[in-house]
Amino acid sequence: AILSAILHGLSPDRPLAGRSALVTAGPTHEPIDPVRYIANRSSGTQGYAIAEALAAAGADVTLVSGPTTLPDPAGVHTVRVETAREMLDACRHALPCDIAVCTAAVADWHVAPAAQKIKKTADAAPPALQLAPNPDILAMLSQPGPTRPELVIGFAAETEHVLAHATAKRERKGCDWIVANDVSPGTGVMGGTENEVILITAAGREHWPRLDKAQVAHRLVARIVTFLQTPHPNPE
Amino acid sequence: AILSAILHGLSPDRPLAGRSALVTAGPTHEPIDPVRYIANRSSGTQGYAIAEALAAAGADVTLVSGPTTLPDPAGVHTVRVETAREMLDACRHALPCDIAVCTAAVADWHVAPAAQKIKKTADAAPPALQLAPNPDILAMLSQPGPTRPELVIGFAAETEHVLAHATAKRERKGCDWIVANDVSPGTGVMGGTENEVILITAAGREHWPRLDKAQVAHRLVARIVTFLQTPHPNPE
Repeated sequence: AILSAILHGLSPDRPLAGRSALVTAGPTHEPIDPVRYIANRSSGTQGYAIAEALAAAGADVTLVSGPTTLPDPAGVHTVRVETAREMLDACRHALPCDIAVCTAAVADWHVAPAAQKIKKTADAAPPALQLAPNPDILAMLSQPGPTRPELVIGFAAETEHVLAHATAKRERKGCDWIVANDVSPGTGVMGGTENEVILITAAGREHWPRLDKAQVAHRLVARIVTFLQTPHPNPE
Repeated sequence: AILSAILHGLSPDRPLAGRSALVTAGPTHEPIDPVRYIANRSSGTQGYAIAEALAAAGADVTLVSGPTTLPDPAGVHTVRVETAREMLDACRHALPCDIAVCTAAVADWHVAPAAQKIKKTADAAPPALQLAPNPDILAMLSQPGPTRPELVIGFAAETEHVLAHATAKRERKGCDWIVANDVSPGTGVMGGTENEVILITAAGREHWPRLDKAQVAHRLVARIVTFLQTPHPNPE
């Protein structure tokens, strides 16, 4: 990485050369039994686009992805996982890094899974699914300490009170920036090709126009480059 | 269909010309809220292969498919659905038909879905998911009556006591045949390219060797052709 920085650090088209980035993307799948699971509608498209854009800017990128139908992005080290707990482990292995961008729609809960397929019986009531909290990957990455990335960016997928929920999430998680978006079914964002986001930083918030997810990625990477090139107080 | 039967009825390579078939395939997705859902690991591969094999044998095929990543099979009328209740509606619209093959891994339960994304709060316990039974599509198709297909075939995906569970399922549902398979994670069947099945009929059971799913489909269609060409008592 140091050699890479020396070779590429001054190159204007590879402004992140020598920098390492972790990107999480996609949904997680939480098993109920050997055949059933809880999932969500995240396609991974926005996270994959950010991983590609970071790599194009010269960063050494690890993409930790839940189950998606997308191919591994070129020039990115992709690690495939299924559950939130597996995603946490893979993220820990990717530390230390300079930049973390958490786009994954990590399940908030997992189910205590059954060893065998749960059988439906005519006389019994439907089973109750007992949920337990999953690890909070964004909060873990945001915790102060020697391996905290210089810049931690979270995503907030909301269906109501987008700005209020996302602003509260930034405070609660301790991350530097939150990219908030409205994923209500009518917006077509989740699983779609476009995104309309609000970037929330310590300095305030910016409403970006509706853009192709690749354009959102490039715009976000440009902001990351500016941030890393600007002196800023240590968050600790 | 009658004209088609006259034109093709005697063609040895189109033995199902003039016959209509309904195939269900894939998982169903049962929404928990606007972003989360319960799913299962069915890929739809076996059902799509059966739909293609039936069409290749000359049948007029409607494929009712849950969410899959597979392309619509050529020469098959494909109807895409998401939930078990939507699958039931699509199957009702496909009646009457001569042959029904129910390969879909239909969710046994649905969740009373939340209108907005369920928020995780630090102090509250995880939500309990209240499950309610889904309609039983195989039992509906198997019910005696004027629109009952001449041959109704169900699939049983089991992880233990495969033969006992599948034999009981045939009796309980009222279908003519059950194709039973072991979908334990170690078998690689669910989401894989091969299948190892037991065909259970009124006459007994047959263990088939491990075969490519396309070969299972062609063997099953050959059995269907023989059944329809042989006089058999009305199930009513």
